[in-house]
Amino acid sequence: MTTYFSEADSAQTVNARMNESANPRLREVMTSLVEHLHAFAREVQLTQHEWELAIDFLTRTGQLCSRERQEFILLSDALGFSMLVDAINNRRPPGATENTVFGPFHVANAPERQMGDCISLDSKGERCIFEGRVLDPQGQPVAGARIDVWSDNADGFYDVQQPGIQPQWNNRGIFTTGADGRYRFIGVKPVSYPIPHDGPVGQMLGHLGRHPYRPAHMHFLVSAPGFETVVTHTFVGDDPYLASDAVFGVKETLVAPFERIDDGETVWRSHFDFLLTPAG
Amino acid sequence: MTTYFSEADSAQTVNARMNESANPRLREVMTSLVEHLHAFAREVQLTQHEWELAIDFLTRTGQLCSRERQEFILLSDALGFSMLVDAINNRRPPGATENTVFGPFHVANAPERQMGDCISLDSKGERCIFEGRVLDPQGQPVAGARIDVWSDNADGFYDVQQPGIQPQWNNRGIFTTGADGRYRFIGVKPVSYPIPHDGPVGQMLGHLGRHPYRPAHMHFLVSAPGFETVVTHTFVGDDPYLASDAVFGVKETLVAPFERIDDGETVWRSHFDFLLTPAG
Repeated sequence: MTTYFSEADSAQTVNARMNESANPRLREVMTSLVEHLHAFAREVQLTQHEWELAIDFLTRTGQLCSRERQEFILLSDALGFSMLVDAINNRRPPGATENTVFGPFHVANAPERQMGDCISLDSKGERCIFEGRVLDPQGQPVAGARIDVWSDNADGFYDVQQPGIQPQWNNRGIFTTGADGRYRFIGVKPVSYPIPHDGPVGQMLGHLGRHPYRPAHMHFLVSAPGFETVVTHTFVGDDPYLASDAVFGVKETLVAPFERIDDGETVWRSHFDFLLTPAG
Repeated sequence: MTTYFSEADSAQTVNARMNESANPRLREVMTSLVEHLHAFAREVQLTQHEWELAIDFLTRTGQLCSRERQEFILLSDALGFSMLVDAINNRRPPGATENTVFGPFHVANAPERQMGDCISLDSKGERCIFEGRVLDPQGQPVAGARIDVWSDNADGFYDVQQPGIQPQWNNRGIFTTGADGRYRFIGVKPVSYPIPHDGPVGQMLGHLGRHPYRPAHMHFLVSAPGFETVVTHTFVGDDPYLASDAVFGVKETLVAPFERIDDGETVWRSHFDFLLTPAG
């Protein structure tokens, strides 16, 4: 290896340039990134024209980002990268409830609700009881667990996507468990919806022959003192997009039963228990 | 491997989702990209916080791009990726003049000049004769070769970086060889200069303990019918940044002599022969 560039030693030459005084973790991350980027270009023998397309794609992706839209997160999601990072950072023992992607539609400080309350405020969609327990690894109920939930409405939109059309806090709420660890609330059966696909990421999906849909799901953010916080969804078990989630969020253990009960008022019931892992 | 996401099979799951009807080359490129991106995250065990920093970095990089500034090309350059792609696409037999990065400062349709003309229009800097021959692989002169040249001025700026300050076409020109294949023009001895470093890429270089300087160089774009076009620089042989070009553009064969002659008017001379490769 020389200090000058050569095709064969390209990554080593770049990485050797990092100063030893730089943050060791930054050096570790950048060294790996440069090695993999160069190996990629070498492996596919990337053409100059493809490189130009990539520069243009990344530029348009950045330029579409705004307060309301994060196209780079969408890109990370669509390449399964967000799910991988989530998995690496949230490994849990077998049986514990698994994480999935957080998604862009959570809003902090939703209204606190009482068990049994209805979170659907727009009278749209098929009513559904969500119920279950929050448990520790011994199967004992966890009291004082905070369950923050959110979902789209029957039209496939979260309230924040339709300000002025949906009531604020539609299909959102925070519930706190009592001594029995149980939760129960009424919402609507979530519906599948497309991720924003009018930008570069949507074009990419189109070129890859992939659809932009996410299977229907209810978001849960479950936290309790002394336990790891769980960021997850439960997926509607009969959704046609279950095996092809555009962001790869589905895990087998998160597919929940949605059982038709039709007891006059409520028409669906979904039961799901959360098994928390002790923190630390 | 299941259709659902798992940490171990993450890349395969993503790549299996591409439709077989998609463009085969696109599938090949994306498959390799996804494998390398996932291998990178796994190798460094990327944290959620680092992922957030990366999203923010890419977003800021895209948002800084404009008609006058291409921060993603700068990123590609600073990671040695541009040079690697250039190398992959411009392999030549030993002895043939090597390529290097094109750079953002070329302007098409510069004035046609006569051999011996001076391209420095602002009377700044140390005058320098650039001369040599354009040759075929047998060492025979190539007639009708078009030599498009450009460099910074003595202050380290290209004319397009200082509209209204430098005269238009300062330190630019196009020369065409005659039967002897020789070229000769007067310019200034180029000086080293920093790449734009007030954005995300400059911050990255700072964190890595790298300086933003390019060693002094004269740009050449040499084309002739029947030969591969050469996009290259000659580097000033005594430049202090020669072994640490911020964009890794230096190749050993491109370091040119800059000899002090001081013949009253002209003070430097740089001789460099271009050996072209037959096209196709």
